[in-house]
Amino acid sequence: MAHMTLALHGGAGTISREEMTPEKEKAYRQGLEEALQAGYSVLESGGAALDAAKASVVALENHPLFNAGRGAVFTRRGINEMDAAVMDGKTGEAGAVCAVRNVRNPVELAAAVLRHSDHVLLSGEGAVQFAIKQGVALEPDEYFFTLERYDQWKEARDEEATSLDHSGPKGQKKMGTVGAVACDREGNVAAATSTGGMTNKKYGRVGDSPIIGGGTYANNETCALSATGHGEVFIKAVATYDVHCLMAYKRLSLEEAMRIVVMDKLVKMKGEGGMVGVDKEGNPALLFNSDGMYRAVRSSSGLYEVAIF
Amino acid sequence: MAHMTLALHGGAGTISREEMTPEKEKAYRQGLEEALQAGYSVLESGGAALDAAKASVVALENHPLFNAGRGAVFTRRGINEMDAAVMDGKTGEAGAVCAVRNVRNPVELAAAVLRHSDHVLLSGEGAVQFAIKQGVALEPDEYFFTLERYDQWKEARDEEATSLDHSGPKGQKKMGTVGAVACDREGNVAAATSTGGMTNKKYGRVGDSPIIGGGTYANNETCALSATGHGEVFIKAVATYDVHCLMAYKRLSLEEAMRIVVMDKLVKMKGEGGMVGVDKEGNPALLFNSDGMYRAVRSSSGLYEVAIF
Repeated sequence: MAHMTLALHGGAGTISREEMTPEKEKAYRQGLEEALQAGYSVLESGGAALDAAKASVVALENHPLFNAGRGAVFTRRGINEMDAAVMDGKTGEAGAVCAVRNVRNPVELAAAVLRHSDHVLLSGEGAVQFAIKQGVALEPDEYFFTLERYDQWKEARDEEATSLDHSGPKGQKKMGTVGAVACDREGNVAAATSTGGMTNKKYGRVGDSPIIGGGTYANNETCALSATGHGEVFIKAVATYDVHCLMAYKRLSLEEAMRIVVMDKLVKMKGEGGMVGVDKEGNPALLFNSDGMYRAVRSSSGLYEVAIF
Repeated sequence: MAHMTLALHGGAGTISREEMTPEKEKAYRQGLEEALQAGYSVLESGGAALDAAKASVVALENHPLFNAGRGAVFTRRGINEMDAAVMDGKTGEAGAVCAVRNVRNPVELAAAVLRHSDHVLLSGEGAVQFAIKQGVALEPDEYFFTLERYDQWKEARDEEATSLDHSGPKGQKKMGTVGAVACDREGNVAAATSTGGMTNKKYGRVGDSPIIGGGTYANNETCALSATGHGEVFIKAVATYDVHCLMAYKRLSLEEAMRIVVMDKLVKMKGEGGMVGVDKEGNPALLFNSDGMYRAVRSSSGLYEVAIF
């Protein structure tokens, strides 16, 4: 019998311990706990892994502190362009969107692609047209405006830097993506990931979040995974599918496979970041090679943890 | 010592034997031979695998018969939206673009992303801005107009069908993507893929071609691969990276690994199509589970083949 388990992240890399005030830490922890509860309660009421993972990501998207949905960072042109993906390990079906604007919850749009489209990945304005057709909620630009992100953007723009996610130039470093994985009562696993990308990003850059096998992957044969970090490296490493293959072909445990990918392969490629995963028995793993990763996990085995560093 | 090898495809699935006239077949074969020569001559003159694969894809993009570049199919809105990727197995670097318009050779833009950008995947208008900055050639809409594609689109639109690539409603079925893989004198491998996607596609649909590990992958440790077929299934299967993992983790040969993915896994997932690959010794493999695949291969071992069915 599988444990019901929900594991999530709110981004890897953090503002440094020195800059983390007790108030800020409390706000982050509270956001993580709310998102954990949102997903875990779906599992408790008998819901499917996909709906649980999605519920956690929706909560993180709605929270202005995390770089996804409402809290998405600004691109070079001063707009918010977001990516998201979901994958259902039971059916192998997936849905994803990239470079979308004005979508309140990109993860809901990715789920609509999974359920109501023959396609897997939709992009840009076309994806927003699909959102309108499916009745997925849109918001005006102002909804996504947060003063902190705007200030980060102005500073980055002035320095002509492309910050990695919402790193600020003042030594803060934070890779912003949110994601969740779940294992439900039936032993089905699923993954969901959502991001606002990099502050001051240019040229319609797309990261690893909407790439199946890059930042998001789920397969009942092995596990479900959501990644956060330096997206370009995670794409080239095909990072989440690599964990799956190490489990499927080398018979490694989730923890062993993630350790190889996150703590060895990605480090060698200078791919700072981390992953959360859950295997088909409901065993979670949360690993990162960065200073910290906003994260939380809860399982019917009794596990409960919310942590940053 | 590795053999110098160039293998390419011009799409899997073909118009049926009955509809293939001798004139058409001659034109396709000529296009494949020219593209083969364009890439192989780069290898013969001591060029790198990446440049050879790219040269073959450029030739296929410039040919109006293949669904990429000039011959790209029309989207639902009557425009051409193209995807492409390149990956260098020596460095592990990759570049890709999705949903780009008016770019003469999307594979050249993907190569510019690899060489001149910190990013891996650029999308839409932003990617075209990058093309302008890098001096990558653009063309007006008319350049991409071919009467045959336009007629396919009108027919598909009238039937409200989204043709799989440039399938026509009259029993023609052709999945249009072009791609090439190469192994150079030094034993470096590389892959390049380019596509116009599906006739009458909507919502900014992106297929597997620009997805690293989906339609395109290269790694000197194992092989280089370019896929063609039902893109959505190839994305969910993480098809090319799966071949890599079967070689890396199960010590299978390229042919054995491709056979499992193309002839078994993808068939079970109803993923019609095929792949061309070359391993680090220069051994090629060209496999497809569809009726045919436009393909060609040449190697310094003496191999020379151009085939459709």
